[in-house]
Amino acid sequence: MKTFFEPKSIAVIGVSRDIQKPGRVILRNILRNFRGKVYPVNPQVDKIEGLTCYPSILDIPDKVDLAVISIKAELVPETLEQCGKKKITSVVVISGGFKEVGRKDLEDQLREIVKKYGIRMIGPNCLGVFDNYTGVDTSFLPTFRMHPPSKGGISLISQSGAVGSTTVDWAAEQGLGISKMISYGNAADIDESDLIEYLSKDERTEVILVYIEGIDRGRRFMDAAKYAACQKPVIIVKAGSSESGAKAVASHTGSLAGSYQIYSAAFKQSGVLVAQSLEELLDFGKVLNMLHPARGGRVAVITCGGGFGVMATDAVEREGLQMSKLSEETMNTMKAQFPSYVVVHNPVDLIGDTDAERYRVALEAVSKDPDVDVILLILLFQVPRLDPEVVEIVLAAKQSGKPIVGVAAGSEFTKVHVTRLEEGGIPFYPTPERGVKAVRALVQYGNTLTKCPGGLPKYISKLVEK
Amino acid sequence: MKTFFEPKSIAVIGVSRDIQKPGRVILRNILRNFRGKVYPVNPQVDKIEGLTCYPSILDIPDKVDLAVISIKAELVPETLEQCGKKKITSVVVISGGFKEVGRKDLEDQLREIVKKYGIRMIGPNCLGVFDNYTGVDTSFLPTFRMHPPSKGGISLISQSGAVGSTTVDWAAEQGLGISKMISYGNAADIDESDLIEYLSKDERTEVILVYIEGIDRGRRFMDAAKYAACQKPVIIVKAGSSESGAKAVASHTGSLAGSYQIYSAAFKQSGVLVAQSLEELLDFGKVLNMLHPARGGRVAVITCGGGFGVMATDAVEREGLQMSKLSEETMNTMKAQFPSYVVVHNPVDLIGDTDAERYRVALEAVSKDPDVDVILLILLFQVPRLDPEVVEIVLAAKQSGKPIVGVAAGSEFTKVHVTRLEEGGIPFYPTPERGVKAVRALVQYGNTLTKCPGGLPKYISKLVEK
Repeated sequence: MKTFFEPKSIAVIGVSRDIQKPGRVILRNILRNFRGKVYPVNPQVDKIEGLTCYPSILDIPDKVDLAVISIKAELVPETLEQCGKKKITSVVVISGGFKEVGRKDLEDQLREIVKKYGIRMIGPNCLGVFDNYTGVDTSFLPTFRMHPPSKGGISLISQSGAVGSTTVDWAAEQGLGISKMISYGNAADIDESDLIEYLSKDERTEVILVYIEGIDRGRRFMDAAKYAACQKPVIIVKAGSSESGAKAVASHTGSLAGSYQIYSAAFKQSGVLVAQSLEELLDFGKVLNMLHPARGGRVAVITCGGGFGVMATDAVEREGLQMSKLSEETMNTMKAQFPSYVVVHNPVDLIGDTDAERYRVALEAVSKDPDVDVILLILLFQVPRLDPEVVEIVLAAKQSGKPIVGVAAGSEFTKVHVTRLEEGGIPFYPTPERGVKAVRALVQYGNTLTKCPGGLPKYISKLVEK
Repeated sequence: MKTFFEPKSIAVIGVSRDIQKPGRVILRNILRNFRGKVYPVNPQVDKIEGLTCYPSILDIPDKVDLAVISIKAELVPETLEQCGKKKITSVVVISGGFKEVGRKDLEDQLREIVKKYGIRMIGPNCLGVFDNYTGVDTSFLPTFRMHPPSKGGISLISQSGAVGSTTVDWAAEQGLGISKMISYGNAADIDESDLIEYLSKDERTEVILVYIEGIDRGRRFMDAAKYAACQKPVIIVKAGSSESGAKAVASHTGSLAGSYQIYSAAFKQSGVLVAQSLEELLDFGKVLNMLHPARGGRVAVITCGGGFGVMATDAVEREGLQMSKLSEETMNTMKAQFPSYVVVHNPVDLIGDTDAERYRVALEAVSKDPDVDVILLILLFQVPRLDPEVVEIVLAAKQSGKPIVGVAAGSEFTKVHVTRLEEGGIPFYPTPERGVKAVRALVQYGNTLTKCPGGLPKYISKLVEK
């Protein structure tokens, strides 16, 4: 499997003279960041993008690690045979026109060929592989439409190519660091379970996000998910949960959406977190990539706007978490240093005339309280006396070891500070509701880990060191 | 009440030499955009911001329409007396230090004085009034922290000042057009019901957003809300719905949060829409400000990413709406013009190789279908052949009269197009789930209107003309 992400050489089969055709876009995308050897294949062309173009894969004089096929469906079997003869072990078939349009026969042919030669295949009918570290990029999306994602620990597996690429683009825009995106399409060979298993062992993946519509091999999925969830967080969006949604799945990927209740039970049992939308998928991915899981569900809220404190409290209860009962000591420490109108019980309300110093005192007191597992920190940068130094204060409070999840809504002035806070390792959300859901994800994953055999996974030690 | 928003002259009482103090910030904020006369009051200063400063309100030689008081709580009663003597009928009391800190006695004094002189009062303990058309701005938030909102039809009433200002800042950043924001604080005189009633008749308000923690005069609220909901959409966030949240309300505004079930029933009966978060409040405000309400709950989904279609379908069912059964004619029209692999039943999937033309055909066919009440339009600008002309196509489809709600997620390239679409009157959301919730708001408000006496409210005719 590793060859899909770290090949030394790639052949692109079906490179057109037309710069808009998928094969050509793929060649260009690969040439942009991939540093290994690249071989375009097209019998009608001699040279393309300054590279020698080969009539067939068999004419390439060197070893080829990865082949990417983007030609008419009818021609794929023969080409795949040639890949086998060339001893290529990893092939991505971009081409559509198989099971999804009723050509199960053609897809079965591919299956037989990969079996015969011991090829591992991603696809057909997919965008294939995007690796942000090695520059492998078989997706045929023009880069001007996408925000180049920064390198990071989030990897995404998507049954749908459009969901995969849109999510990566959107994640990039939010500043999330991406490792890999794999769109696996019809899954004639490699499926979601293979990919989850691979990513669970991949050093450059810290969080696994998954979009699926249906799972064929249930037992295999359970095993892979269970193993993976003990290594790093696995978060899933399962589309097709409604009756009409399940019908829509049938005409989209031809999968059986199945009973959502069975899926939910399976996800719960395997320790996988479920997100209700792509927004939640990224919200949860962000928090779990930035913070270590919570040791329990007791939440302390610190705010400078009482209304935000109330909404956060409602959300804590709605999400099945608890508002921490702050100790007398914690409250007295704050009381001693604050004006009398500051509210020192949970939710702690520093009031709209707060300065950064009140946040320092509150964060220090609350993070020492043994009855607090997570801090939800609401910072309203609109209030008049809250100076930018609050950013340093919050980042220093990270040292206490208690996870801090931030909430701030607003325009440019707010965003400038939120960006600095996120770069320093504190995830932020625009509303108390989304912030509290992220906290719930931290707590749930903390629970998952208590059921795992062996010690804490490697990624957590990394997070604690950060 | 009108004098609060359209005064000819304003006196600011408690203007400090210190440019950070509230009274001074208020003076500056008013001078920025207000075109009437402005009188600063401070017995210790002669001139401030180039204006003559008067020792007391009684020393001002001219008529004063609106007085804004920002001085120590203890001094407010006497100053309010002077306002009465000066025959000022509208007063905003910014100062805190009353009921919310246990000084109900002081607040009762204010109540008696306004009664004696026939003054209407907003506050105490509030940010007061922001009017984006007349330039009245009594909020003491430094403008560099906020995005100046464009003029528009959305007005916000907030019991919490921080929620009010943060929401306006966030709305401005999202490009929503704002009319007014009123933070009414302790509501010693004017409360949410008075404000809802006023805004329901205000020509410059097309949608009313409300943040409340508790309502004292339930019957009065029901009457005001019922009347208002038949004039224009009223959307409410009610904080303090949980047990712990209700306790937090007590220490925030001192209101009784009350039983959420009773509130829910009251909102439903009065035709008010309930939002679960500030994000939903703005999402609903946007859709109801841009589109006329739906005539029913039958939704057609058009997408170029199958996965998004599936998620939209799930959401439609979850929100209690129905997926339209497209007529044979609608489907045949599309079938005749599309490649065979395009899915022409609902959700219509134009596939990732779509161009703008396919969107034109689908929008035309679907909007003619009598079994479609609302169109959910998913546009993924990441797909390679979707040219910018799709924007004109979608805007032209608006003419059909069927409400179109858009979904698009992504970075800069997506945002450029979404901005143009929103400027043209099509609201967009980043996920199918949020888009479908917005559709539900349109449908719910359509239902509300069928129960209203008299014809369609004025604001709808305006929307239809747009």
